[in-house]
Amino acid sequence: MELDFIRKLKKQSKSKIVFLVIDGLGGLPSKQNGLTELESAKIPNLDSLASKGICGLQQPVGSGITPGSGPGHLSLFGYDPIKYQVGRGVLSALGINFSLHQEDVAARGNFCTVDEKGLVIDRRAGRISTTENEKLCDLLREIKLPGIDIFIEPLKEHRFLLVLRGKNLSADISDTDPQDIDVKPFQARPTLYQSKKTSDYIKKFIEESYEILQVHHPANMILLRGFSQKPKWPSFEENFGLKSAAIASYPMYRGISKLLGMTIIETGNTIDNEFKKLEENWNEFDFFYIHIKGSDSAGEDGDFNRKINVIEEVDKYIPKLLDLNPNVIIITGDHSTPALLKHHSWHPVPVLLWSEYCRGDKLDHFGERDCVKGGLGPRFPAIDLMPLALAHAKRLDKFGA
Amino acid sequence: MELDFIRKLKKQSKSKIVFLVIDGLGGLPSKQNGLTELESAKIPNLDSLASKGICGLQQPVGSGITPGSGPGHLSLFGYDPIKYQVGRGVLSALGINFSLHQEDVAARGNFCTVDEKGLVIDRRAGRISTTENEKLCDLLREIKLPGIDIFIEPLKEHRFLLVLRGKNLSADISDTDPQDIDVKPFQARPTLYQSKKTSDYIKKFIEESYEILQVHHPANMILLRGFSQKPKWPSFEENFGLKSAAIASYPMYRGISKLLGMTIIETGNTIDNEFKKLEENWNEFDFFYIHIKGSDSAGEDGDFNRKINVIEEVDKYIPKLLDLNPNVIIITGDHSTPALLKHHSWHPVPVLLWSEYCRGDKLDHFGERDCVKGGLGPRFPAIDLMPLALAHAKRLDKFGA
Repeated sequence: MELDFIRKLKKQSKSKIVFLVIDGLGGLPSKQNGLTELESAKIPNLDSLASKGICGLQQPVGSGITPGSGPGHLSLFGYDPIKYQVGRGVLSALGINFSLHQEDVAARGNFCTVDEKGLVIDRRAGRISTTENEKLCDLLREIKLPGIDIFIEPLKEHRFLLVLRGKNLSADISDTDPQDIDVKPFQARPTLYQSKKTSDYIKKFIEESYEILQVHHPANMILLRGFSQKPKWPSFEENFGLKSAAIASYPMYRGISKLLGMTIIETGNTIDNEFKKLEENWNEFDFFYIHIKGSDSAGEDGDFNRKINVIEEVDKYIPKLLDLNPNVIIITGDHSTPALLKHHSWHPVPVLLWSEYCRGDKLDHFGERDCVKGGLGPRFPAIDLMPLALAHAKRLDKFGA
Repeated sequence: MELDFIRKLKKQSKSKIVFLVIDGLGGLPSKQNGLTELESAKIPNLDSLASKGICGLQQPVGSGITPGSGPGHLSLFGYDPIKYQVGRGVLSALGINFSLHQEDVAARGNFCTVDEKGLVIDRRAGRISTTENEKLCDLLREIKLPGIDIFIEPLKEHRFLLVLRGKNLSADISDTDPQDIDVKPFQARPTLYQSKKTSDYIKKFIEESYEILQVHHPANMILLRGFSQKPKWPSFEENFGLKSAAIASYPMYRGISKLLGMTIIETGNTIDNEFKKLEENWNEFDFFYIHIKGSDSAGEDGDFNRKINVIEEVDKYIPKLLDLNPNVIIITGDHSTPALLKHHSWHPVPVLLWSEYCRGDKLDHFGERDCVKGGLGPRFPAIDLMPLALAHAKRLDKFGA
């Protein structure tokens, strides 16, 4: 359902919605017991909630598509991730919680290796260490250009973030990364006339970078791509009429929430911290997004049992959540991360929706293959979740007479 | 599926389709027995039909969206209700079976209260009684404007219908209802130049209304909105090649059917009347839409048992229906109306499709949670039903060689 359509139907209510995102929740059967991580977990509280709620499996982007954390979360929040795309520069800024201003231009940088003719021979400079990267970023910070501020932040290995801040900057600039070797880096070119000034700054910055880096082989040059500005999207509150809070310890998730205008609640790393923050802030917001990171990290490490443990720990907090008397609870992930694969995957993600007004589906366990038989269906679009949450919270008007 | 696509595939046949709409059919489990109205009903004939047919749950508009009767029915008839929207003026006319001509301009009116400065202080004039409304409409009928005919029909409480009939009228006119208080009513303004003449008529009508009403506090002024003309849509017969009949006792449903070009068969209020009319007219049409109102009214009254009774009464007529030898039967609702909620809801609506050529799904009861496991799926778009009906009636050509 289009956001423009939902926006017109929203209505006020005092009801509260909790959106609990267990990152990478979906899994694949292990060779040992033939069960997935979620199916193996002892989760009496989630099972009980599933028996009163309605379940199913959602797809964040589409059939067969493995979502990154950005698109995975945007779709949970009702923003079609194919329509609402964030530039790579902005995503990198979000990922380290860099506070972008509306007119800043951000780009993703790579340290790379060029030969004596200036041809790229390694786009990643031999994947230099993050420590080496930090030293090089310090050197690049010496570059000053008149009229603008320049920010350079190291990311992992050979990656860094470049941000230009100034007046009348514009991000319609082509990548300098040729995405190939044995060719020269491309020139930064304005793709719209209004970006001429910004692309001149970029060219100057690249020249000065080369002056500094040429003696630092293998990281003797930079490549830039994904020039972008903070998107001007209607906020979560404009779309859904919800005063919303994000409880997430990792920068990327806080960044995406902030992009949509949610209030970020400071929290520690533990699940216990996060649920304490939920309780403390209960009266202040209509919508709470809580992000559990450990399940995804365990999946990425291929640690089947640790992923089970994280899910079982979340289960222990369900009674505490119910004690707060929310009107709607949705529990799902932003994508699957099967320990078997050790990375994000395209497999549909289990969903549990509970509310006083949901029509159940007679399931008694919250697991992938139980959810196949659930009332929400086995492969529905994740962007349906926000309209469903609002409907069950009695926050949507009838459409038409 | 788009109507433009289906239209090209339709082919002629002598087959007959019956579309039985049990208004507000879907429900929610009661606190007493944990079953919905439909699940509680004793419906041996529908159960038997379900065991031979294919079942599922449809969504008239989309996930989480509660449909009004207009959009609910348009989607059953294959018209995407987001694309095919009817203006509020036209919908009001349909609701009282006012016979709109193609060029008539209709608007929904409110009697309202303005203070001595002309500011709106109550948009509904204290919700005056329908009887009072009727008297005021009689007064407004005194207004004559040169060159056009004016029709004024009371609706419920403070609402009325205004229709202008004449040559070269156009409905691109902005609302005068400010949707707020402590402001003056807006001027009726043409939003396209071609509506200048019509908006002048409207302004004059409003002035004269005020002359008449100013001594009738609290209903001392009018507000108009939803100026609209009968939409020029391809008819049901053009789209599907079906000579179609509507058997419905309530004006709104007859109105929508008429809008699509169906023949309206006069009928009494009872289910028995409606099935008699079906029998009498069996040889004259290819497609019959039968509308059962009592289930929705019972749901809106919160009367769980009365809704069960209506469903059980419909069940008794199924053998009669089968005796007519239809080729395809579809039984569903235009939306859910759970007695628990006392209003239309967003919950998916049970569907039973029977034909000699359907591939069944081994269900043995027609109920919401049985339908979750049905072959049509737990949340499919209602606009899929007409193509499915046509296919099972052998009325669609193959697509492509």
